Formats: sequence, structure tokens, C-alpha cells
Amino acid sequence: MSFDNRVTRMLGVEIPIVQAPMGWIARSALASAVSNAGALGIIETSSGELEAIRAEIVKMRQLTEKPFGVNIAQAFVRDPSIVEFVAEQEVEFVTTSAGSPMQYTKALKDAGLTVFHVVPTLRAALKAVDAGVDGLVVEGGEGGGFKNPSPVSTMVLLPLVRSKVDVPIIAAGGICDGASMAAAFALGAEGVQMGTRMVSASESPIHEGWKRAIVEAPETGTVFLRQEKGPALRALRTERTERLARGEGNPMAELGGGVRKVYFEGEIEAGVALSGEVAGRIEAVEPVAEIVSRTVREFDETVAKLASGRSGRGDGC
Amino acid sequence: MSFDNRVTRMLGVEIPIVQAPMGWIARSALASAVSNAGALGIIETSSGELEAIRAEIVKMRQLTEKPFGVNIAQAFVRDPSIVEFVAEQEVEFVTTSAGSPMQYTKALKDAGLTVFHVVPTLRAALKAVDAGVDGLVVEGGEGGGFKNPSPVSTMVLLPLVRSKVDVPIIAAGGICDGASMAAAFALGAEGVQMGTRMVSASESPIHEGWKRAIVEAPETGTVFLRQEKGPALRALRTERTERLARGEGNPMAELGGGVRKVYFEGEIEAGVALSGEVAGRIEAVEPVAEIVSRTVREFDETVAKLASGRSGRGDGC
Repeated sequence: MSFDNRVTRMLGVEIPIVQAPMGWIARSALASAVSNAGALGIIETSSGELEAIRAEIVKMRQLTEKPFGVNIAQAFVRDPSIVEFVAEQEVEFVTTSAGSPMQYTKALKDAGLTVFHVVPTLRAALKAVDAGVDGLVVEGGEGGGFKNPSPVSTMVLLPLVRSKVDVPIIAAGGICDGASMAAAFALGAEGVQMGTRMVSASESPIHEGWKRAIVEAPETGTVFLRQEKGPALRALRTERTERLARGEGNPMAELGGGVRKVYFEGEIEAGVALSGEVAGRIEAVEPVAEIVSRTVREFDETVAKLASGRSGRGDGC
Repeated sequence: MSFDNRVTRMLGVEIPIVQAPMGWIARSALASAVSNAGALGIIETSSGELEAIRAEIVKMRQLTEKPFGVNIAQAFVRDPSIVEFVAEQEVEFVTTSAGSPMQYTKALKDAGLTVFHVVPTLRAALKAVDAGVDGLVVEGGEGGGFKNPSPVSTMVLLPLVRSKVDVPIIAAGGICDGASMAAAFALGAEGVQMGTRMVSASESPIHEGWKRAIVEAPETGTVFLRQEKGPALRALRTERTERLARGEGNPMAELGGGVRKVYFEGEIEAGVALSGEVAGRIEAVEPVAEIVSRTVREFDETVAKLASGRSGRGDGC
């Protein structure tokens, strides 16, 4: 059975799975693997390295003929020419995040793009719909990376937003396989976004040390770092991030110099390795194509099992 | 279509919804309404008021002919004669929580009871299975009340535990309607537990002021109170609990004298009003029978929609 809903149609994909736009990581090697698997790769701009991004998008065109998207993380890319930059790349899909949906939605839509805004609360969702977005990425607090300081879990946030808006929703936070994708659809999503699952994929450009840390993490292996100002963060639990969680030091400052060591040298204690709670469910580094195809197969199995009776697992006793 | 799975069979109920065992609240007025609706009411013992509980169980027999259960919150009821006490009540189902599953499982099973242990992590789940429990209540961090200091959301914890154990699972945390119940089943549950939803029900014995505070709360309207020692707590966000969240004062001490004022006089700022994130999804005080029947109807609609295509909401565009 093939997927056919508003997300597959708007994004032009077979499989409504979107790869999250992790800074430095969401580049052509990973994103092209996702698009080639029938899902949607996204190129990040939050690193601020726009010339490198431009080159990555050129590479994307060499690596895949399938659609892909770009993310604008507004808090990190403050130059308004980012709209022109994205429009020039001739992509059709953009997600906006970490800022007001009033800022770029109109200009992006005027440029012919389909715009989904990332929201962590109902209030933000209603504001984005008012701003004219085509859809929402609804992001539960169990996800990795930058977070609202008052996190709300996917199980609560997603059906709440679903009940109050009509636009299509891509669910993020806690999703890494077909069971969680089916749960997100039960809660009203028409697509899902995977971050940590893709960070850990074979094609992800990060150091093996970070991938290994994800594979080894238990489900309690992340910490939620609140800050006085600005966004909160969810990251892998390490000695360093536990100190930050106790209020010793400034998590945002940690994202500076240490980033490259964490990302590309695998020195997990050198900075903050962003990760969602699903690190506790990831047991191996696998190719993107395998992650995507297994997710679809599990999704089908889960839905079939649900439909065949009200029994959940259903056997035994 | 009727439910028929290990949870309905083990509990002897038509509908695999269990009411959570909130201290002082999970007494005969509420629990009998739940059992009479075809689900499972549970009587608490965490208040420690065992003589009052004994009288409540006598009342239960007058108010319902349906099955009901008892909870033993081990951290709060330290007298080992609690096993004898529960066995004497001639109930068939008990949940144990807030303590080691090694402590009472064997004695309870020897007394002929079906035992489900409440777990907040995979490690606790494996330990409970080793101790011989019949099933698990897997409790995500979005739920209200006493919590593991490293909370894991239902979307992550439930499928993780499901993939590692064979016993039936009742999902708790984030569940208040048919969509969230269907999501929990997609993640491997065969039953769900509702706490905050039942706290807010018409038959719940708490003051209207607390029920109103639940109805008015947004989805960001709870705080997670960590403690140096012992369990963490999730409670409604108030001036008092925000102070506690900033580390001013001891949350456990707040559960002392203020409890009765919060619970029965509606003075929300007099103490800590325990609540899950689903407070943000509850829009009205409703009778238990209506909550249960609507949940079942929504569950069926959600599963039918999922099965009819991979479209989530599926229409529009």
C-alpha cells in the first residue's frame, strides 16, 4: 500500500518521512540518501555557512533527482537575504524554525515555496497558521536539539494541535521506527520527522564516536538543559552536560568551539552532543535506505495488527 | 468491535482502561464509576489511611458488581502487612509502584492476585519481569504525580519496553482520549491508564477549583519538580510550583499540610496539585461514563482511519 496524503503530495515524495535539519549534519551526503530512499532530505542553514550550503545544494543535484528541502533556523540565520538565497536554490519545500512565522512566510510563499513552520506549542501553531503556512512540524519535547523551555511531549502536543488546526502536520520528537510513526499518525500526523535516527545513520557525516554514544545510550541517556534566556536544549547525558543540567555553566556557550570536536572528532565531552530521547531505542548504525524501508514495513504491520482487532500485541495469554 | 486481549482477560473488564491510583482521590466514588463504565477502577493506599480504605472497599461492593483493583505505593505504605490487607479485600488485581518489585510480588501472587508493576524505565521493567509480575504499567514522564527524576516520554519508553519483554503492558502518561489510546496500542500497549483525565471527572472527589485549574491549563501548564533525593513530581504550574521548580523549597514537604487544602478546598496555591501534561487537552469536567465511551468510539474511529489508508487525517489538500 502506498502513502497518499497531503504531506506526500505537497512534498512530492513517496514516503512521508522527513529528515531533520541538524546544523552541519544535514548536508548532501545524508540528505541525498534520504531523498533517494523515497523520503525527504533537508539541507540545513543553521550553521550559517551559506557558501558551503550553496555548494552542498549543487552536490545534491548530482546525488539525487528526487525532491529535497531547506530549513531556515531563524535565530541562527538572521540575514533577511536568506529568503532570496533559498529561493535561488530552486527547491520547492522549506521549513522555518526558531523564530516568528510572520517574518518569512509571506516572502517564501511569494517565491513559490511550500512552507512548514516548526512549533513546540499550540500557541505557536495558531500563530503560524495565521501567518499563512502550508503546514506544521509539531515538535514534542522528547526530541533533540533546540527546544522550548516548557517542553510538551508528542503524545500530548500533537493531538492537541491536530484538534485546533486544519493544515497538515509532520510530527517530530520520539519517532524512529514504524511503531512510533503509526502512533504519530494515530495522533493526527500525515508525516514524521526523524532527527537522532538520521544523525546515527551510516551516511551521517558525524564522527563514529558520536554515533556509538547514541547506540550505547539508554532511554534515560539525555538531559534537558534549560536556560535563563533563549531556547533550551536536549543533549546526550555526559559528565559535561550533567554539570550544565545542574546549572553550572552556559549551555549555549558550549555550542561554540566544542562543536567541531564533538561532531567531527567524536570527543563527546568536548561540547554538547544534541540528541533526542530515541537515542535509547537506536541499537545500530544503519544505512538510511534500510531505516526508511524498515520503518514503512513496521508501519504497515502495526496498522494491520491494530485493524485486525483491538488487541495491541494481541497474542499470548 | 469488542476488546479482547491479555489485559481485558486478566482484569476481567470489557474495556482496557484503568484509572490511576491517585492518593485520596482514587476512592469509591470515582473508582466505582470507572468500573461501572466497563473499565477498571483502582483504590489507592498511598494516603496511608488504611481504615478509611477498608471502608471505601466495602462501599465499592455496594456501588458496583464489576471488578476493581487496589494499588500499593510501596514508598508510602511501608508496613508489610499491606499484602495481607489487600488479600483480605478479595480483589483480584493489584498494581505495585514506587518500590522494588522484589518486595511484594511473590507474596501477592501467592495470595492469588494478578500483579502489574509500575515502571518508568526499561531497567525497572526487566527487574519487574524477573520478579515474576503478570504485567507492567509503563509510565511516561508526561504523566502527573510521582516520577522518575530522569523522565522518558511514552512515545519512547513504551515501544522500548515492548520490544524487550513479553508480558502485557498498560500504558500511562499522556493518555486522555481515543487517539492517544490508539497511539499507545500502536506502540505495543494492550491497555491504558488515565490519571489526570479521571482526576478531572465529575465523580472525582476533589474540589471544583482544582478541576477548573486542570480545564484552564494550557499544555505547557505543568512543571517537573526534581529533587535531590527520592522521586520527582509533575504538578500544575502555579506561582508556588514555579518557585519550587527554581529550586526554592522542598517539593515533598509541600505534599504535607497543604494537600487537603489543595484537594478539598480548591486552594491551588496552598500546596502542590499533581497533574500530567494532558491537563492541556482537557476542556471540560465530564462524567466517567462519557469519558470512557467517547474514548472507545474515538479509538475505533482512529484505527479505522489508519486502516483505510496511510493518510492520517487523510482528507483535504
